[in-house]
Amino acid sequence: MKKLVLAYSGGLDTSYCAKYLSQEQGYEVHAVSVNTGGFTPEEKKDIEEKALKLGVTTYSNIEAVDTFYDKVVKYLIFGNVLKNNTYPLSVSAERIVQAIEIVNYAKKIGAQYIAHGSTGAGNDQVRFDMIFQILAPEIEIITPIRDEKLSRQEEIAYLQKNGVEMSWEKARYSINRGLWGTSVGGDETLTSNLSLPEEAYPSQLKKEGAQKVKLTFREGELIAIDDQENHPAKNIEILNGMASEYAIGRDIHVGDTIIGIKGRVGFEAAAPLLIIKAHHTLEKHVLTKWQQHHKEYLANWYGMLLHEGQYLDEVMRNIEVFLADTQKNVSGDVFVTLYPYRFVVDGIASAHDLMNASFGSYGEMNKGWSADDAKGFIKINANQNKIYYHVNKMS
Amino acid sequence: MKKLVLAYSGGLDTSYCAKYLSQEQGYEVHAVSVNTGGFTPEEKKDIEEKALKLGVTTYSNIEAVDTFYDKVVKYLIFGNVLKNNTYPLSVSAERIVQAIEIVNYAKKIGAQYIAHGSTGAGNDQVRFDMIFQILAPEIEIITPIRDEKLSRQEEIAYLQKNGVEMSWEKARYSINRGLWGTSVGGDETLTSNLSLPEEAYPSQLKKEGAQKVKLTFREGELIAIDDQENHPAKNIEILNGMASEYAIGRDIHVGDTIIGIKGRVGFEAAAPLLIIKAHHTLEKHVLTKWQQHHKEYLANWYGMLLHEGQYLDEVMRNIEVFLADTQKNVSGDVFVTLYPYRFVVDGIASAHDLMNASFGSYGEMNKGWSADDAKGFIKINANQNKIYYHVNKMS
Amino acid sequence: MKKLVLAYSGGLDTSYCAKYLSQEQGYEVHAVSVNTGGFTPEEKKDIEEKALKLGVTTYSNIEAVDTFYDKVVKYLIFGNVLKNNTYPLSVSAERIVQAIEIVNYAKKIGAQYIAHGSTGAGNDQVRFDMIFQILAPEIEIITPIRDEKLSRQEEIAYLQKNGVEMSWEKARYSINRGLWGTSVGGDETLTSNLSLPEEAYPSQLKKEGAQKVKLTFREGELIAIDDQENHPAKNIEILNGMASEYAIGRDIHVGDTIIGIKGRVGFEAAAPLLIIKAHHTLEKHVLTKWQQHHKEYLANWYGMLLHEGQYLDEVMRNIEVFLADTQKNVSGDVFVTLYPYRFVVDGIASAHDLMNASFGSYGEMNKGWSADDAKGFIKINANQNKIYYHVNKMS
Amino acid sequence: MKKLVLAYSGGLDTSYCAKYLSQEQGYEVHAVSVNTGGFTPEEKKDIEEKALKLGVTTYSNIEAVDTFYDKVVKYLIFGNVLKNNTYPLSVSAERIVQAIEIVNYAKKIGAQYIAHGSTGAGNDQVRFDMIFQILAPEIEIITPIRDEKLSRQEEIAYLQKNGVEMSWEKARYSINRGLWGTSVGGDETLTSNLSLPEEAYPSQLKKEGAQKVKLTFREGELIAIDDQENHPAKNIEILNGMASEYAIGRDIHVGDTIIGIKGRVGFEAAAPLLIIKAHHTLEKHVLTKWQQHHKEYLANWYGMLLHEGQYLDEVMRNIEVFLADTQKNVSGDVFVTLYPYRFVVDGIASAHDLMNASFGSYGEMNKGWSADDAKGFIKINANQNKIYYHVNKMS
Repeated sequence: MKKLVLAYSGGLDTSYCAKYLSQEQGYEVHAVSVNTGGFTPEEKKDIEEKALKLGVTTYSNIEAVDTFYDKVVKYLIFGNVLKNNTYPLSVSAERIVQAIEIVNYAKKIGAQYIAHGSTGAGNDQVRFDMIFQILAPEIEIITPIRDEKLSRQEEIAYLQKNGVEMSWEKARYSINRGLWGTSVGGDETLTSNLSLPEEAYPSQLKKEGAQKVKLTFREGELIAIDDQENHPAKNIEILNGMASEYAIGRDIHVGDTIIGIKGRVGFEAAAPLLIIKAHHTLEKHVLTKWQQHHKEYLANWYGMLLHEGQYLDEVMRNIEVFLADTQKNVSGDVFVTLYPYRFVVDGIASAHDLMNASFGSYGEMNKGWSADDAKGFIKINANQNKIYYHVNKMS
Repeated sequence: MKKLVLAYSGGLDTSYCAKYLSQEQGYEVHAVSVNTGGFTPEEKKDIEEKALKLGVTTYSNIEAVDTFYDKVVKYLIFGNVLKNNTYPLSVSAERIVQAIEIVNYAKKIGAQYIAHGSTGAGNDQVRFDMIFQILAPEIEIITPIRDEKLSRQEEIAYLQKNGVEMSWEKARYSINRGLWGTSVGGDETLTSNLSLPEEAYPSQLKKEGAQKVKLTFREGELIAIDDQENHPAKNIEILNGMASEYAIGRDIHVGDTIIGIKGRVGFEAAAPLLIIKAHHTLEKHVLTKWQQHHKEYLANWYGMLLHEGQYLDEVMRNIEVFLADTQKNVSGDVFVTLYPYRFVVDGIASAHDLMNASFGSYGEMNKGWSADDAKGFIKINANQNKIYYHVNKMS
Repeated sequence: MKKLVLAYSGGLDTSYCAKYLSQEQGYEVHAVSVNTGGFTPEEKKDIEEKALKLGVTTYSNIEAVDTFYDKVVKYLIFGNVLKNNTYPLSVSAERIVQAIEIVNYAKKIGAQYIAHGSTGAGNDQVRFDMIFQILAPEIEIITPIRDEKLSRQEEIAYLQKNGVEMSWEKARYSINRGLWGTSVGGDETLTSNLSLPEEAYPSQLKKEGAQKVKLTFREGELIAIDDQENHPAKNIEILNGMASEYAIGRDIHVGDTIIGIKGRVGFEAAAPLLIIKAHHTLEKHVLTKWQQHHKEYLANWYGMLLHEGQYLDEVMRNIEVFLADTQKNVSGDVFVTLYPYRFVVDGIASAHDLMNASFGSYGEMNKGWSADDAKGFIKINANQNKIYYHVNKMS
Repeated sequence: MKKLVLAYSGGLDTSYCAKYLSQEQGYEVHAVSVNTGGFTPEEKKDIEEKALKLGVTTYSNIEAVDTFYDKVVKYLIFGNVLKNNTYPLSVSAERIVQAIEIVNYAKKIGAQYIAHGSTGAGNDQVRFDMIFQILAPEIEIITPIRDEKLSRQEEIAYLQKNGVEMSWEKARYSINRGLWGTSVGGDETLTSNLSLPEEAYPSQLKKEGAQKVKLTFREGELIAIDDQENHPAKNIEILNGMASEYAIGRDIHVGDTIIGIKGRVGFEAAAPLLIIKAHHTLEKHVLTKWQQHHKEYLANWYGMLLHEGQYLDEVMRNIEVFLADTQKNVSGDVFVTLYPYRFVVDGIASAHDLMNASFGSYGEMNKGWSADDAKGFIKINANQNKIYYHVNKMS
């Protein structure tokens, strides 16, 4: 029997795959969903019921929220990674961990095939396939949606013809939820000029006024909110709950897909944006100039390679040790105020704060050096360009 | 007679210099102010009257708003330069142009000395001195405030003793206004944990609701607002007026000074932040991935070197031609909505938009390539890591 | 009639294509060779005769040495580009210009097809196809060798069966000659551990002793050798002739192909290595530290993208203007001595030399600043780390 | 009593310091030399005798060869660091370790002062002072040579007047020997156009012909030469002995000093150049493209910051963990041939070699993918520029 693991989400595409691959193609289909933070208990139950109705041999859900945090999200925070200065890479990051969980599951049960529901036009196919091929070159990848280019209508018709009675109404906005943010696609994101309307965002404004929040970091990780300690992944969820009531963290990302076309996607990512801005502010106080400079260089690359499905390149491990090593002193409190649709990072307190009055404060008179020291510094700093202008007769 | 040009701002420090250098030190003091966008006509009149009362030989104001735009601001826009992802480099950028104008003026009138009022603790002394020394190594630099470490009280006492009756009340917040933003310093910015209170910001919220604005760029420059064409520098002023009524553009910058200490400064920069975000969004649509990538690298360096007073390094000219060359297609409209304390970039319209439906849209089925093309692409993209995992027996 | 332009080199693969495409596939074959510096007059005649014997409709040779220099080689010199610090990108660079010439020719004669003889395992297919597809998406690309995976034996058998009597003895080493270097492949380069034997290199040692050469650069271009002026492309040929007699410029390049595998290729590139080392030495004297730093960054990318067939990415034009702008002062003489198998750059003379005794010489006592200036410079330079060690209680 | 540690080398400058500081200034002088690989047993004895004759209170030699290797040289190898693609940073690297040893010694014996003999014109003063100030801000730095700008003649006269009869003949070339190379300064290196004559180099050609050497690396470190295992620092010495007989490793470095002027220095560094080239070649076989790319970026910075005395910046520790992490698979043999004045890296053998025939060899027909895969790869790779050219109507 041809054993196949299907990456199953409960949506129309993967439901079609479940039915089609087991019934028409004769595979023994083992449906697997991977929860990287997007599923409520009700959704998980619903996904399971759907899978079983479609006739799969087994269904499993893999809980991967903490794995997701440990393998990827932690480093996105260490690196303050915002793709194009905007997007916390919510979906890209999730896909990597989902793919790894699925290929490990397939190897564990001895499957010869892995199937997924990605189309041939997007990034996800690249992320899934690359990880599957690298970690399990012996497993064949099956992608009916990509291969057959079926329309929603054709998929629904097939399912109905085969006795699957489910409701497949297309939501006006396609929503993809995870620990590190929610993407929102719709007619507007297929244009260049339209923004998403208020109602497109899953989190609606529920609170007015201002709310102060204290975020405590230890070696770069968010260990407490308002002095309440929790696992960092749990803290992300808690903070997201708090900030989403202020409808914080919405934006639209325009980026280059792996396949060379431009893509546009809305998102809401209240906790990711808050945490990155807070963490970054703390770093500005505790890291040296060159630490910040080279962190930014490597972190941008980490984000780009992650986005492009190159998570398994060994350079990613090298960058991770670098980023982790920079976090030794990134400990302290960050004070944030939430407002409707926005937030302000008020300031920080840290035992490692380099903005230290005992050496001289910016704008105040100096204590650690004299006017003559400053003049000497400037004079020698100007040396090369003084020579350049002199030699090249510029002025 | 010892001819001296004094960089004069009308403030206490440079007023002290004016009196002290002419009366005690016997210099023929030529006071010069350089307007890089911060002075109203009333302020200019006030500065002139003060200067003359202090007994300077001549006073001149140099209008340098357009020069400032052409030499520096234009490239900060081309490069989307935000220091530490936050600060549009408002003050750093101005100082450079002021220094160049002053040294040129000094050379024109044959001065042997240039004086300025910077202390020995900040960045401005470095920016001024470096440019003076490089462009006019033969001119001696005189800096009474840095050399004598006088307190405000001592300066005021000296002026009063010498018959200068002016009001020198210290404002609670020191404000530095220019075309490219306004800095705000106060007791809070000397701490790490406190934010500036609402009243510290010169622009107070005056409007509620939302206002749509259309920004038109041609080759990277803002040539029109809501279809009204003007010189880009003028457009910055107009947009700033519009957006300041929404109290947009406030933040606190924490950065590394040239002299190695950390500094913290509040600012409001409504137009700079709006223009940079709008311009950057347009670029995401019209530039290739690698253009964006390398622009960001060079632009960060442009900002860092500008901040550190290295504007005259020839590499800055090299970066400018690079940045200008990338702007050939950065033309189009950007749609923005202003709200109290924030803004949203809604979208763009450009004849050079690469998000072009005729090739395939992200997330939709592809037109320019087949499922097999995608599979081939992915397969070969995975080659190196497939080999790496195989050779190193990882999985 | 199906009009086809064949990139023809006179070798077995493209000869097979010429015969097969005209006779079996019914194309009207227009064979074109592009000379980027590798063909002697005899070889050109030989290629032409072969082409005509194979039954092509027309044959043309395009002389592209100067184009090659102007479009690519010039920038490789400006950037001191050596891939992996070793390889002057000889072949990669040529292919780009050959592809552009061929696609322009095809458009000029209204061909609907372009054929080339690359296999599916190398870099050249990528370089050719990408440029053809981007510049002429309407033209179909035909690649019999890649598609049919024929062996040399099969190709020879086909040609003989069809009455083509030519000698196709395989040389022990496959040689690819061009203006910017000669690649050498053989059994050894398919291993990781073997070097090429002496006889594999086309240029054999003919001279002993030492020969001094003066290279004169103007704005980065080699305009004269030993005071004899010529077009820079001509100078490359002349210098190559001189240095090849010393068997200078041999090495083996190990690199990452575009398709993810590692490749190894021998080369001799006497003039390229001499010119790059001489040019680089001149730059060390006339450019600022940051010019050198950022040039190197961009030039490495220029080399990488060129190697990977991304020459048409607009960022390449942006980098070219940057590189050209850095060359304004790269003028002067470089003194080189040739020895068997090696050379030494002895020194330079330039009106733009920043190593200028009037400011202070390295190691000698300083003239432009005092001991106190130096101490002030160092003190302030140490500030950040002093604070860091103090705050973090390190010592 | 004022306790002072003097960094003592046995040369004229530090001998003057020893006498002057103890006799005229009343310091209790503790002379310390730090051996980072440059001293023979005879030289050490000679230095000790000199020191004691000059009347210092104590003299100690600190053996720091292994420390030098562990703290710095190891990372220069991991990073293939050649400043400006030429110079292995021989002197810069030593100074750092010498300064750290001296400041630790001063703290151990409770000295309030540290003295060194650097002038005010060079890099060494910066390296020494910065490390002293950061690690021991409470210790005062004393620099008679820098402060008094004495000539050699004045120093010799002072010593003679004070009964010190030693020979201070100036060698024609000043030589600075260490584990990681020997610098050579002379009249020629003060010009831009002259090279050093044969006799300036300490190692003269002693062998003709060719000698094959096998270098074995384990995780980036040179653990064996011709199968003879030793500590890596010892292996550097052994290899240097072998290669110096071929007069390998000579060159002239032209670089930017920390104080903004250009400097030129000859060097011989047979083992450093051999090891770096061999190590780099091995890396080309075992690292991914992006590992090599980002290693090079960080390693260049490591070299620059080390050169500029910024070794204690925390970013250096971050870079070190990155570099070390990349070395996990850099194990294998490298085959090298030594010739008079030059060497050739013949090839490598490694269990981690990614140039692996089982996936497809460069230039040969492919096994891991089909012609169609390659076409799909290329097609999608061309997407962005196809769109760019289409939208912008270029061709």
